[in-house]
Amino acid sequence: MAKTLEFYFDFGSPAAYLAHTQLPKLSAETGATVVYKPMLLGGVFQATGNRPPIAVLPKGTYVFTDFGRFARRYGVPLVLNSNFPIITTTLMRIAIALQLRTDPRFAEYMDTIYRAIWVDNHNLNDPAVVAEVLTRAGFDATALLALSQEQEVKDALKAATEAAVARGVFGAPTSFVGDQMFWGQDRLDFVREALLA
Amino acid sequence: MAKTLEFYFDFGSPAAYLAHTQLPKLSAETGATVVYKPMLLGGVFQATGNRPPIAVLPKGTYVFTDFGRFARRYGVPLVLNSNFPIITTTLMRIAIALQLRTDPRFAEYMDTIYRAIWVDNHNLNDPAVVAEVLTRAGFDATALLALSQEQEVKDALKAATEAAVARGVFGAPTSFVGDQMFWGQDRLDFVREALLA
Repeated sequence: MAKTLEFYFDFGSPAAYLAHTQLPKLSAETGATVVYKPMLLGGVFQATGNRPPIAVLPKGTYVFTDFGRFARRYGVPLVLNSNFPIITTTLMRIAIALQLRTDPRFAEYMDTIYRAIWVDNHNLNDPAVVAEVLTRAGFDATALLALSQEQEVKDALKAATEAAVARGVFGAPTSFVGDQMFWGQDRLDFVREALLA
Repeated sequence: MAKTLEFYFDFGSPAAYLAHTQLPKLSAETGATVVYKPMLLGGVFQATGNRPPIAVLPKGTYVFTDFGRFARRYGVPLVLNSNFPIITTTLMRIAIALQLRTDPRFAEYMDTIYRAIWVDNHNLNDPAVVAEVLTRAGFDATALLALSQEQEVKDALKAATEAAVARGVFGAPTSFVGDQMFWGQDRLDFVREALLA
């Protein structure tokens, strides 16, 4: 029986971007349904005491080399965004809002934002740039940005982040197959095994 | 031309143990010479501001699940030592002392200590247990423990740890192929590629 892959992500994580690029293939190979689980990585770090790799300077430098190696292996583009870190609160709120409304353009929104940050090096810390990127992709930027300010949406992202932490999530991306947890874009081979088991 | 793999390790790291179990095969497949580089991981953490995974509780729990998955994949035994963390200063000093003296039993010492901690679950925080493990493996425990107290040996491990940090090391195990650095037992596939390139 085909299984479900629950994929916890935040647009601000280049590792989550790398994993994201591999999910269509993984889904096709395993027949698995991918359920995207938006969360705010900053909130996860705050709740767990975890820190981003860059908190340790040589680790921050290294992980980008490492991500570059995986990007070459996967054959996907990856640019170290020059405005890193990107504060993704608004972007993640829009993601969860679209998902809650089962908006058919959720997947396209995901691709648009990931590409804007990790391929096209846009400064999504600037709301004007966010609006421009959304508009160019054919979204109603004004409506989406307004959506991100709704209390219900804010609460939904907060609750989703707390639920992720309660489930054991401490970083991004994190994949679940049933109750088996896998942290990192570099564990997709184990995820594949679990989906096929 | 066959290359050299420089392998920075500390016995206290289960990830370094897992990598250690794979090095003979990696060396045979690539023709590479493995140069073991003892260092004190605690010193590396202190110098870089890095922390062990267990500093974040859910991460500490997760990484042992993850190590277990790799142990099964590799087909090697791994027991979470019930006295974790093991303070490895004496053990690492003996390692570097044997290496400095080009003692022919260096490799056997490595295997003995790794097995004692990560397979046989011995409490190597207890000097009496260390002596017992060494004696049972045919080493002169008294001589080795005395060696670990020599100033020259203490200084050598300190210098080796500082040199590792200066080279960019922030965790264990860390492998170098030329100036390419690879952190983790889960990057041996990339190390293999670099050795064959």
